Amino acid sequence: INFTYLPGDGIGPEVGAAALAVLSAVAAQFGHTLEAEDHLIGGAAIDAGEKPLPEVSFGSCHRTGAVLLGAVGGPKWDHLKGADRPELGALLPLRKRLNLYANIRPCKPYEALLDRAPLKRDRLEGTDFVVMRELTGGIYFGKKGRDADGAFDECRYSEPEVERIAVIAFDLAMTRRKKVTSVDKSNVLETSRLWRETVERVATRYPEVELEHLLVDAMTMHMLTRPTHFDVILTENMFGDILTDEASVLCGSMGVIPSASLSDARDDGKTVGMYEPIHGSAPDIAGQGKANPFAMILSAAWMLRLSFGLDAEATAIESAVEAALVAGDVTGDLGGSLSTSDVGAAIAQRL
Amino acid sequence: INFTYLPGDGIGPEVGAAALAVLSAVAAQFGHTLEAEDHLIGGAAIDAGEKPLPEVSFGSCHRTGAVLLGAVGGPKWDHLKGADRPELGALLPLRKRLNLYANIRPCKPYEALLDRAPLKRDRLEGTDFVVMRELTGGIYFGKKGRDADGAFDECRYSEPEVERIAVIAFDLAMTRRKKVTSVDKSNVLETSRLWRETVERVATRYPEVELEHLLVDAMTMHMLTRPTHFDVILTENMFGDILTDEASVLCGSMGVIPSASLSDARDDGKTVGMYEPIHGSAPDIAGQGKANPFAMILSAAWMLRLSFGLDAEATAIESAVEAALVAGDVTGDLGGSLSTSDVGAAIAQRL
Ligand SMILES: CC(C)[C@H](C(=O)O)[C@@H](O)C(=O)O
Ligand SMILES: CC(C)[C@H](C(=O)O)[C@@H](O)C(=O)O
Repeated sequence: INFTYLPGDGIGPEVGAAALAVLSAVAAQFGHTLEAEDHLIGGAAIDAGEKPLPEVSFGSCHRTGAVLLGAVGGPKWDHLKGADRPELGALLPLRKRLNLYANIRPCKPYEALLDRAPLKRDRLEGTDFVVMRELTGGIYFGKKGRDADGAFDECRYSEPEVERIAVIAFDLAMTRRKKVTSVDKSNVLETSRLWRETVERVATRYPEVELEHLLVDAMTMHMLTRPTHFDVILTENMFGDILTDEASVLCGSMGVIPSASLSDARDDGKTVGMYEPIHGSAPDIAGQGKANPFAMILSAAWMLRLSFGLDAEATAIESAVEAALVAGDVTGDLGGSLSTSDVGAAIAQRL
Repeated sequence: INFTYLPGDGIGPEVGAAALAVLSAVAAQFGHTLEAEDHLIGGAAIDAGEKPLPEVSFGSCHRTGAVLLGAVGGPKWDHLKGADRPELGALLPLRKRLNLYANIRPCKPYEALLDRAPLKRDRLEGTDFVVMRELTGGIYFGKKGRDADGAFDECRYSEPEVERIAVIAFDLAMTRRKKVTSVDKSNVLETSRLWRETVERVATRYPEVELEHLLVDAMTMHMLTRPTHFDVILTENMFGDILTDEASVLCGSMGVIPSASLSDARDDGKTVGMYEPIHGSAPDIAGQGKANPFAMILSAAWMLRLSFGLDAEATAIESAVEAALVAGDVTGDLGGSLSTSDVGAAIAQRL
């Protein structure tokens, strides 16, 4: 199991260490050798006198094709501009250069956390959807800048860009409840009209899959009033950013949600995968051993499954996490008293 | 009281008729004469062989300076392109040409509706914020189109555009709890960086007001986990569209939320105001007498207060609505059995 480990900023190194402990335990138990290539990214790279995304870090990601990322960014680097920033200079180029256009974020609340959510239990029970977010296009990557008239950001989508993410969403729906909800703002945006047309065209190839369209503003409501209705939610980059954060509230905590960002198969036959918690670098609690490492541990499990085909190993980790949640072996944010590394150790021990 | 009445599409004419009945009753009681200039807009105008925004409709809005709008759009006109559509051809140009850049949407759940919200009562109690949405800039009004590479939409903001809406938000905060939460995506967008810089500059003129910044993705969470924290939420056009729909869920129903869209004072000294429910045209229930008219009735009350300075009249309507909610004189969506026009009559009678 040779992968690239990018701890990054804030709580990244802490939750990363807990995930590495879990990976070591799983490797020992299942008889794998583990080789983590540890590299700098984001503010950590800037502080070391490097660019936000050092070439050696990128090279490792490209070579291994499997990346476990903590988090990047924080107020310390907020004064920096454009590509000098951790987000614009590291995270976004990494996604783009590795062609990680398919970002998958699950929303399936754990029974043990249901009562932590601000929503009523009876509304949440049975919720089980995934958001398929387009990750390498849209307003994130369009031309941006200043001119005499002010500031601008261009949102762009090409038909092939929409088509390939739609295909992934429909393929995923075929393995699930066969329902795709495509989210756009086609009553205002031209990119959304292209989005909708293209998704409808792809849908004709999947007669068994039921397709519906929702406007992004309406979606923020439906997600709260009828979350159990959804199966696969397909959307563009910015709307996906917004909707996945909203969805995390249904789960009672952001701290338990992993994500995968995948490319197509490359010329060498390999699909690149990057795995990261959906939470950020949480600078306010960094370095205090308070950070909840579940999202990072679950991201590591997804890496095992999706990049290395190690399904039993991934499932073992996921079961251990669920058991720890039930037993209350959790950090303070979830009502427990364990430190970040204690949680990692508790999961490792359950394996 | 001379105003322009644009019933529009779907349920617009029904909820509009209920609001007119209430306005008549209030005018009679307080001794005003009421003159509603009834005009076509949106799909209704298209069906009559006109443009989505007929010049005579616009002219009336411009002359009266006070507009009560139902809703525009629906699937019937969804195949139309660009400026032939009700939204792009009528609603957006109307906002732009009347310079209605300040859109205000309240979020203060009624006690009688608290238990209808999917959120837990104890999280909602005490919620009382308004969203100040910039309404005439951003990606709604930027260049949009298709070219060989696909589709594009440009988001633009100038410093004066940001400054003027920020001033309105801070002025409003001074009359409330003196807190402004500005929402952007400044870790990715250049327009958001301009937004944040400009808001910070305006804030220096309001030393008593506390300013915080939140990223839009994080805001979707905070709105649900700590809604009582917010006072005035200030944001750009698209984010405001998304966040105000999300906020409506806190109120237990979209059907009770009015909005005002205001201009600066014109050369003739008059501030133009347009008042509309935040819900849409709801074509699925149009024509059946099922639509909840409260948002439209409350929009009419806001018109009386903000465009005509008739505070007692507005308050009388608002009190009557609250009493009707408590008494259960409501439509089916709120658990009652009254028709749209029954509700209008019930409010009129309570005045
Ligand atoms: C850090 C930021 C640039 C990023 C994004 O907006 O994509 C984050 O919010 C995410 O969702 O992964
Ligand atoms: C109908 C649509 C164009 C409009 C908008 O996006 O502004 C609506 O959603 C609103 O919030 O007023």
